[in-house]
Amino acid sequence: MESFSTKPFSANGREYCPPNQPVAVICLDGSADEYLDEALARNLMPNLKQISRAGYRGMARGALPSFTNVNNSSIVTGVSPEKHGISGNFFLNPENDEEVMMNSAAFLRADTLLAAAEAAGRKTGVVTAKEKLRDILSAGRTNGIAFSAEKAKEAKKGSHGIDNAEQYVGEGTPEIYSADASLFVLKAGCRLIERGDADFVYLSLTDFIQHKYRPTDETALSFYQDIDEQLGKLMAAGAVVGATADHGMNAKQCADASPNVVYLESKLSDEFGAGFRVILPITDPYVHHHGALGSFAVVHAPSSADLVKVMDWIDHLEGVTEVYDRETAVRKLELPSDRIGDLVVLSARNVVIGKTPEHHDLSHVATGLRSHGGRYEEMVPFIVSEALNPTYRQKADGDVRNFDIFDFVTNGIQA
Amino acid sequence: MESFSTKPFSANGREYCPPNQPVAVICLDGSADEYLDEALARNLMPNLKQISRAGYRGMARGALPSFTNVNNSSIVTGVSPEKHGISGNFFLNPENDEEVMMNSAAFLRADTLLAAAEAAGRKTGVVTAKEKLRDILSAGRTNGIAFSAEKAKEAKKGSHGIDNAEQYVGEGTPEIYSADASLFVLKAGCRLIERGDADFVYLSLTDFIQHKYRPTDETALSFYQDIDEQLGKLMAAGAVVGATADHGMNAKQCADASPNVVYLESKLSDEFGAGFRVILPITDPYVHHHGALGSFAVVHAPSSADLVKVMDWIDHLEGVTEVYDRETAVRKLELPSDRIGDLVVLSARNVVIGKTPEHHDLSHVATGLRSHGGRYEEMVPFIVSEALNPTYRQKADGDVRNFDIFDFVTNGIQA
Repeated sequence: MESFSTKPFSANGREYCPPNQPVAVICLDGSADEYLDEALARNLMPNLKQISRAGYRGMARGALPSFTNVNNSSIVTGVSPEKHGISGNFFLNPENDEEVMMNSAAFLRADTLLAAAEAAGRKTGVVTAKEKLRDILSAGRTNGIAFSAEKAKEAKKGSHGIDNAEQYVGEGTPEIYSADASLFVLKAGCRLIERGDADFVYLSLTDFIQHKYRPTDETALSFYQDIDEQLGKLMAAGAVVGATADHGMNAKQCADASPNVVYLESKLSDEFGAGFRVILPITDPYVHHHGALGSFAVVHAPSSADLVKVMDWIDHLEGVTEVYDRETAVRKLELPSDRIGDLVVLSARNVVIGKTPEHHDLSHVATGLRSHGGRYEEMVPFIVSEALNPTYRQKADGDVRNFDIFDFVTNGIQA
Repeated sequence: MESFSTKPFSANGREYCPPNQPVAVICLDGSADEYLDEALARNLMPNLKQISRAGYRGMARGALPSFTNVNNSSIVTGVSPEKHGISGNFFLNPENDEEVMMNSAAFLRADTLLAAAEAAGRKTGVVTAKEKLRDILSAGRTNGIAFSAEKAKEAKKGSHGIDNAEQYVGEGTPEIYSADASLFVLKAGCRLIERGDADFVYLSLTDFIQHKYRPTDETALSFYQDIDEQLGKLMAAGAVVGATADHGMNAKQCADASPNVVYLESKLSDEFGAGFRVILPITDPYVHHHGALGSFAVVHAPSSADLVKVMDWIDHLEGVTEVYDRETAVRKLELPSDRIGDLVVLSARNVVIGKTPEHHDLSHVATGLRSHGGRYEEMVPFIVSEALNPTYRQKADGDVRNFDIFDFVTNGIQA
């Protein structure tokens, strides 16, 4: 019988004891639980249904802001953004006053548990739909495989741990705005495990489908059916599978389906004068998804501003649900103090925060905006393919976080 | 063919246009969505499964605090607690400084839509598991039927609109700490509609099962199976059925399964001296459920207290997630300003707020506390048995509230 390293390893103060079998963790990007519910109601996810009974399906609390880079970083480090430093997809770098993508591992302040797993003898593999995540997810690893669906054709042995990724997976590089971008990732993960090229795998999907389709839309249902098929293949290959999400997804639109936006920088300028910079950490290269509109923003105020007054004024804006100064945001939202401006702002279940009307290209979201970033996309599915041991069954009755998923699949299953 | 009044009626600024068929709305007390998921995964809710496909199943945002009286009052009035005045199960009445149950219709400040439906010619019926709700739910009605499972044997034609309720339902008065207390309500509702004694019905269950059992426990699964059977009977009787919940439910315990409590009055006294009164609005006669421990509390501070300082101190307590002064609680949580003390406090997904250790009898929750009251029990299922019309299908993409359920079942279904 094939043997897999069961040597314990640690990362960021947590210990992981991997089982003698392949381990696969999936980040089902943007998977509000309703997507699973609707697919299950139509008998499209038989493997997930089986997991509900034989394994574990519950809900976990994600990290805020409920964005992709933030939560993927939490999942692979096992800690909150306060500790790993990734506070968004995008930020105003205080070191040079530049607004930049937060895609580089250089911004990551915690070690990844993937690197620790590799050092302990596991063959690690990372496949991500979006190229933007590859660098962060690869941090600290020296041998493992790491490539994206988006740039599959560019994968090279030296830099990505694999040559000819398209051939390996058996599919061409998918269009990033597609279901295939995610399915490519799952298929790659199956192949890695089936062939024994990796036995400790993290698979991170993309939320194009969820941004564009309701849970009951045929396209979404079909997508989850396809996900379920891959879930079955991973289990059939002997893997214990953990699945969670980086964030949920809600419609953020007015009655006429136009985007329901609070243009915060405009409003601040109108009320208090120039000098306010509103940064939208949802910003990423994938503008079709959301037009850079999410339910979380940070405000950099001019030094002359009366922050208490500004905070109170923002708190009274229709659609704003929470406003925190920096210290409180660190304490309540577990955010890194130097990367969140002076104030952080969250908006309602059906409201997004924008910068100025001119800043946003709404052409791709004009007739329907589904997005995330706030409190109402914080709760996500949390799935383990095998039965939990008594300790973790008890632990599941606590405030489980999505970034506990590697803990559960390594330490939490029955021997 | 039998005909039902389709005369529109209004309550609290909302108009309702009932369909020419019986209408039944169910409050699935304490039904976190996970209860439905687990029962569905085991094929125990075929009628709900069918509704997911042919009707509508989604999530709605309840009223805060996520307690029974608050949300039942919202459901039957269609408005927030700020407008209907019911801020808990229990409060400190500022008019006479007495701590009392908030069970009386005398505390209700809004008309019920049930009274308006009755006035418009519908035959209304209310059946509630807990006697504590009967008075509020009956407010303003003159002819309709209203009785509780708990006190079924005491129902009289003159006061309850029905004699011999036990015989009518075909079952004896159930024990309040039981699944039967809820099932009696559903059976009564079916009987009322099947016999034509009521055609506009509100059925409010009790959450004993959810307080005591996880979604995967056999007792909970069996309970939801029984609920589903009654759901099917209501639909078979021709009713359009709406179902939602007053609140969700989460485990609130430490690793050893003992209650995870912040004793707020004790802590305030230790820090700031005597004079603070912490009121726990979850308090009700059903102590077996929760030991008066929930995730929401109000603080009445002595006049000498520095409220800003006290608020900030509470906000720093481990386990506390939100603290608001009165004005902010009214604005952000839609609460009635005169019934919430000086400060309102919410606690985390796995934390409850207590008064003092001496105040609580923990004997019924010593080895497992599941409770509610806070932000993490705010989101609840929202179910309509028939397909939504295009306007309401669009509306469902907004920030739907649990107290929109009568709106959806009357105005929202396809003609």
